[in-house]
Amino acid sequence: MFDDSYFRFPDSPAGLYDPLRYMIGIGGKRIRPRLCLLSYGLFREKPCPGLEDVAAALEIFHSFTLIHDDIMDRSPLRRGKSTVWKRWGEDAAILSGDVMLIEAYKRIVKAPEQCRMQVVDLFSDTAGKVCEGQQLDMEFENADFISMREYHDMIGLKTAVLLACAAKTGGLIAGASQEDCDALWRYGYDLGIAFQIADDYLDAYGDQQVFGKPIGGDIINGKKSWLTIRALEKNSGAAAFTEAFRAKDVAEVKRQYDSLGVPSDALAEIVRYSGSARSALDSINADCSPLEDFAEKLVGRVR
Amino acid sequence: MFDDSYFRFPDSPAGLYDPLRYMIGIGGKRIRPRLCLLSYGLFREKPCPGLEDVAAALEIFHSFTLIHDDIMDRSPLRRGKSTVWKRWGEDAAILSGDVMLIEAYKRIVKAPEQCRMQVVDLFSDTAGKVCEGQQLDMEFENADFISMREYHDMIGLKTAVLLACAAKTGGLIAGASQEDCDALWRYGYDLGIAFQIADDYLDAYGDQQVFGKPIGGDIINGKKSWLTIRALEKNSGAAAFTEAFRAKDVAEVKRQYDSLGVPSDALAEIVRYSGSARSALDSINADCSPLEDFAEKLVGRVR
Repeated sequence: MFDDSYFRFPDSPAGLYDPLRYMIGIGGKRIRPRLCLLSYGLFREKPCPGLEDVAAALEIFHSFTLIHDDIMDRSPLRRGKSTVWKRWGEDAAILSGDVMLIEAYKRIVKAPEQCRMQVVDLFSDTAGKVCEGQQLDMEFENADFISMREYHDMIGLKTAVLLACAAKTGGLIAGASQEDCDALWRYGYDLGIAFQIADDYLDAYGDQQVFGKPIGGDIINGKKSWLTIRALEKNSGAAAFTEAFRAKDVAEVKRQYDSLGVPSDALAEIVRYSGSARSALDSINADCSPLEDFAEKLVGRVR
Repeated sequence: MFDDSYFRFPDSPAGLYDPLRYMIGIGGKRIRPRLCLLSYGLFREKPCPGLEDVAAALEIFHSFTLIHDDIMDRSPLRRGKSTVWKRWGEDAAILSGDVMLIEAYKRIVKAPEQCRMQVVDLFSDTAGKVCEGQQLDMEFENADFISMREYHDMIGLKTAVLLACAAKTGGLIAGASQEDCDALWRYGYDLGIAFQIADDYLDAYGDQQVFGKPIGGDIINGKKSWLTIRALEKNSGAAAFTEAFRAKDVAEVKRQYDSLGVPSDALAEIVRYSGSARSALDSINADCSPLEDFAEKLVGRVR
């Protein structure tokens, strides 16, 4: 479906570009380029010049954020492999991330001329928001209490806007109407929220082999995930949960989650947002089943 | 000459955008935007829409590189003030640098439509090269020996290509001929080489108040500057210099420089490259005195 030649980077200096190849090479589900291509495919059968460059740009941008986030989060593993900073050191990870963002821009500007500025402006606006989301995520780590509203704003910026951008960009390149492009954006956004809650769920309840990271990582790192915030909502004033969370006691925190019914609440919320994502497609006068199937597969992994 | 409103950034989250305002606010000589505007001014009297956005983009990009370089170099001071990572921490400095690169791109794409892709492609190509230069600079710190050729390649990438890009971009926006744009690029490149050698010279022989950084910083950090490489060229096999350099003995290294005539060699090289920069302008059929004066002022600071 997607030609990896769009992920080629210069050979030299190897110390700068090897981490880019590594990061693209360790896999990932290519969610953002696939979303862009599927959205495009709702309206047009044949790809057009620039489409795959733009799709690749979205993945390259996402990989850039992972390289830098992993430094900030001190994460040793990503997709079951060493993170870039663990393998090449922090300085190399900073610089390789920088050049990866530039490589993303080299491709995004290859959008067809008639929609280029819309695509590039949406991309830059989205990229800035992703940084804002990461900033809020870091600030939340030092905050005593985060409301569910604040959490949603944060994951909206950190995760959902990029999926929204990917879906809308496919529509823009296909020449879809403004209304259809906006519907695609809302689909991507709600799917992104569902996806992030699923990620938070899997961090505590997933299979390490599949998830690629140690289970309970969020608890160990004191991250205020959807599960934590929901537990605090249901259990305000009770010290047992707060104590277990402060002590980074994964087993006890999960016992508290279970007794509060947090996992089933999370599953219900994932279903609600993925349903809302699918509903956003109703107004589009095209067969949207590829995007419906995509949503199902993406968040269906929690079951 | 240059309106600072082009340097406005979003207010919130303050933790993300305050470092951008700080970095722009602590000054700097605005070399790159001035170069762009002066080059444009050779061909056209009145500014055009997008010109100042592009000029600002060049400064914002440069500031982004400084924020990240200062982390990698562990530099506590920049222009006499705390560096961003010293003041806000490394994680904030990584993320603020990232969003600053995105802010640069938001402005560079405002180049007038008829030259937009040329301007943006030149910018991305240059930005990638600047990262390559920083990578080589870091690799050189761990190398036993760096030749003058390797040093020139490195500063060409790290410093000179951005001045070259700034000068050429002004010409592109003004609609100057390909030949004139190429001449402007060569002017900027050679001026950049002269400027970097002057910077290396001032690091050892400047006035700390004017220079904004502690004198001898390159020696203390084991950086292989033009002075070091020239000293090794003239003095190969003699252990006295190498020992003083390894011991980070600023006074003794400078005594060795002096006895080898390195400072006067540096001054001669600066004059040679700034002369070569001016010569590149000969083929341009316009009054180039503003760029000649600019070169004179920029590297004249060493005298």
